[in-house]
Amino acid sequence: MSSTASSTSTQIQLASRPVGWPTPENFRTVTVELPDLAEGEVRVANEFISVDPYMRGRMNDVKSYIPPFALDETMTGGAVGRVIASRAEDLPVGTAVLHQLGWRDIAQAEASAFRQVTEIHGAPLSLHLGILGMTGLTAYVGLTRIAGLRSGETVFISGAAGAVGSAAGQIARLLGAERVIGSAGSAEKVELLTSKYGFDAALNYKDAPVREQLPELALDGVDVFFDNVGGDHLEAALDVMNTGGRLALCGAIASYNAEEPTPGPDNLSALITRSLRMEGFTLGGHFDLADEYAQRMTEWFAAGEIAYDETVVGGIDHAVDAFLGMMQGQNTGKMVVRTA
Amino acid sequence: MSSTASSTSTQIQLASRPVGWPTPENFRTVTVELPDLAEGEVRVANEFISVDPYMRGRMNDVKSYIPPFALDETMTGGAVGRVIASRAEDLPVGTAVLHQLGWRDIAQAEASAFRQVTEIHGAPLSLHLGILGMTGLTAYVGLTRIAGLRSGETVFISGAAGAVGSAAGQIARLLGAERVIGSAGSAEKVELLTSKYGFDAALNYKDAPVREQLPELALDGVDVFFDNVGGDHLEAALDVMNTGGRLALCGAIASYNAEEPTPGPDNLSALITRSLRMEGFTLGGHFDLADEYAQRMTEWFAAGEIAYDETVVGGIDHAVDAFLGMMQGQNTGKMVVRTA
Repeated sequence: MSSTASSTSTQIQLASRPVGWPTPENFRTVTVELPDLAEGEVRVANEFISVDPYMRGRMNDVKSYIPPFALDETMTGGAVGRVIASRAEDLPVGTAVLHQLGWRDIAQAEASAFRQVTEIHGAPLSLHLGILGMTGLTAYVGLTRIAGLRSGETVFISGAAGAVGSAAGQIARLLGAERVIGSAGSAEKVELLTSKYGFDAALNYKDAPVREQLPELALDGVDVFFDNVGGDHLEAALDVMNTGGRLALCGAIASYNAEEPTPGPDNLSALITRSLRMEGFTLGGHFDLADEYAQRMTEWFAAGEIAYDETVVGGIDHAVDAFLGMMQGQNTGKMVVRTA
Repeated sequence: MSSTASSTSTQIQLASRPVGWPTPENFRTVTVELPDLAEGEVRVANEFISVDPYMRGRMNDVKSYIPPFALDETMTGGAVGRVIASRAEDLPVGTAVLHQLGWRDIAQAEASAFRQVTEIHGAPLSLHLGILGMTGLTAYVGLTRIAGLRSGETVFISGAAGAVGSAAGQIARLLGAERVIGSAGSAEKVELLTSKYGFDAALNYKDAPVREQLPELALDGVDVFFDNVGGDHLEAALDVMNTGGRLALCGAIASYNAEEPTPGPDNLSALITRSLRMEGFTLGGHFDLADEYAQRMTEWFAAGEIAYDETVVGGIDHAVDAFLGMMQGQNTGKMVVRTA
């Protein structure tokens, strides 16, 4: 191993469970001394860590598809970096790796905790946390396996300027969607959707109720709804879904920080009268599509078919700010923290 | 043709569109003179007419999967009877037929409007409006194609003492369900579910909130929910659905007479966290399963595996009462009107 590798790690822990919106007081920063590397272990200097909406759910102590974050433990989650010290043959110093050890500048563990990533010329390593990684795969699974998108259909994507949303819009088009409509929370994002991401139409949900705006953009109805928001967006979509339509529920960011249960849409009867299918999903059961996705996305990416944005926040000390900003919609595209 | 066949027809028309609960004033009874039979026509004396929940939706002037009933026209819907006069070779006098000409004692039309039914020894003709007909097929489609019921699963059926519900409970068991739970609105019906229809457990939704009662009956959760009610039942089911569960929405009788939109369940986020699929359906797109169903149900019926109840109301003049009573849950099993 290199004798120059950092031997301390700065880490962000969950100090208490938030009620409603998280605050900086729910987190604490610690610096720990790392033990010497054991045989089979590697030490990784993270370049980017990921902050994602699903993490809010894990801060609650409730049964869900993944267990809650443990109190007084370092926050876990996606991160990419490079090996700076190694006692594992497969991962020599310099290797770019992806892992789930989360919110820390230096990660050290057995080599099996890290997966080497294929570096694409001109693509920053952070894209493996976004369009080239789980974010993009989430969009692909929702459109294909869950919604069964068919060529010629109209797709509506809520939270479309977010990481998953902007991937979903472009993938929907590449899969043959005839019309792609998105929602976002600022004039700048709405402009980006049509100018950069190829959406046919977009609405700013802060301008007027989605229920009023959407019908004007979806004169022929909507066949597939890819939902990252829930609440008013889901209700508006149900109003305009065509018979036989499919709703893929990926996220419900509108309610993640609610302190009380919020009522559902008042038009669920549309499911019966228009034979709609609404299905929630998480990536957990669908990793079998990862290779298929990687192959298609690599081709699309190489052909220059994919645009992306990242909102990069500098410094592990700002990880909490980045997370809170993402929950408030301050990001365009994937929100990542640059640790270096 | 027989010269003794009745030449007048008593019919019930929709006189005005109900707001909220229908009242007798929304209907009128007329007696019309029938023209002489034309070549290719038959005249049918109805024995039973069907009153069904879906008819409430058709009384509204809104776009749905079937067009609304026309004002000042005779109510359409399922009916069974016998040919009493015929100028069509295929349907001689005495033939038992099923048709959709609805609320009248005598129906006269081209032979193509009628379908001969196979009479089963010991089974009243009315069963072709119920367990042997569309009612039973609805239960079968919901459990198989929509919910994908698998052997060994737990099923919860709302409105289980109704026509579709009592069929669904028995069919679920015959398809291999491990545990079948039902809800109904009286102690007598709850008793019937377990003693006659083979449900493992049943609750009276008038005793206490479904959300409180259901968890005690579904200690291992629910895999398939077959919903005829909506509202509080759907919310209670979402609380206890197992990961990967399916919800087949067949009806929402709880809201059919609501004058204002009612909020949906406050726990829809379960769709995402537990990867649930919720799908509404009507029989329209699934008649391709009719032959398969008829074959299986005829075998089950012949083997004595099927119990049924009918609530028979006497006289075409009481069709409106029967419909209103059915909407209020006064029936056990299929509600039919005996016209003879």
